[in-house]
Amino acid sequence: MGENTMSEKTMAELAVGQYAEVRRHVSQSDVLAFVEVVGDENPIHRDAAFARRTRFGAPIAPGLFTAGLISALIGTELPGPGTIYLSQSLRFLRPVRIGDTITARVEVVELLAGRNRARLRTVCTNEAGDEVLAGEAWVAAPEAARGAGRVVRAGVVDQAMAV
Amino acid sequence: MGENTMSEKTMAELAVGQYAEVRRHVSQSDVLAFVEVVGDENPIHRDAAFARRTRFGAPIAPGLFTAGLISALIGTELPGPGTIYLSQSLRFLRPVRIGDTITARVEVVELLAGRNRARLRTVCTNEAGDEVLAGEAWVAAPEAARGAGRVVRAGVVDQAMAV
Repeated sequence: MGENTMSEKTMAELAVGQYAEVRRHVSQSDVLAFVEVVGDENPIHRDAAFARRTRFGAPIAPGLFTAGLISALIGTELPGPGTIYLSQSLRFLRPVRIGDTITARVEVVELLAGRNRARLRTVCTNEAGDEVLAGEAWVAAPEAARGAGRVVRAGVVDQAMAV
Repeated sequence: MGENTMSEKTMAELAVGQYAEVRRHVSQSDVLAFVEVVGDENPIHRDAAFARRTRFGAPIAPGLFTAGLISALIGTELPGPGTIYLSQSLRFLRPVRIGDTITARVEVVELLAGRNRARLRTVCTNEAGDEVLAGEAWVAAPEAARGAGRVVRAGVVDQAMAV
């Protein structure tokens, strides 16, 4: 693979108020691919007849598909590659239907510089501007420039997992 | 699609201590399919040369892929189809590498019967028995038998999303 061109921010480059966003149209094939890979045979995601008998009326995307948009944004843009994902809270506020366009947003809301910890507000909204998912993430930012031998404190890595 | 044969439990059928588990081998194609569908181009998941320069040494699965195994278990087994996913907390404790076999477990730890709310402990462990992901979910259980016209209180559904 060629040189990575994604942005990444070390702790020193992060500031409260920075944000990143991505817009994504949710297609039926996205939902089918997601439920295949995680083994989710819940009929609400792909069985129109089943879904019609629920309050939703039509198949909906898994909540964790929407959450995946946030994770992708953290891992590619803010803070970007090298980030260690420590935790994520998720409140599923409204259904995401096939055909919806979702905007995922990640915003830096707190920095614990001495401990290399950043708290991110993570929100997804639909095209009507309604929040469909809200929560927070704690991450450890990339600590060194790529190629220079990334240094990550053992205490972080043994307890955590990259995004 | 044919008749659904997955188990599902209404609130009256749930009890503290009930659990469901699924074991899953994590393949490279699983990880590639997951990152494709959520748009996660973070090189840690598929670029071996990049991953070698990190503490992980090799590509790792996205934390939300592992979380997806939990979501699938909730939506297919406990409580099963018709469940409304209200919230999920996730602590990413250790990396999941390609080739790992992960056991996802969901256990009922609290029931608020009058409000149709169940709290689930959600944990994923690797083949060494180490927890890689831990957290909790709140769900609303399916309220009526399928086919009888599922009744879900508006106050739940307007604020929530099916698993």
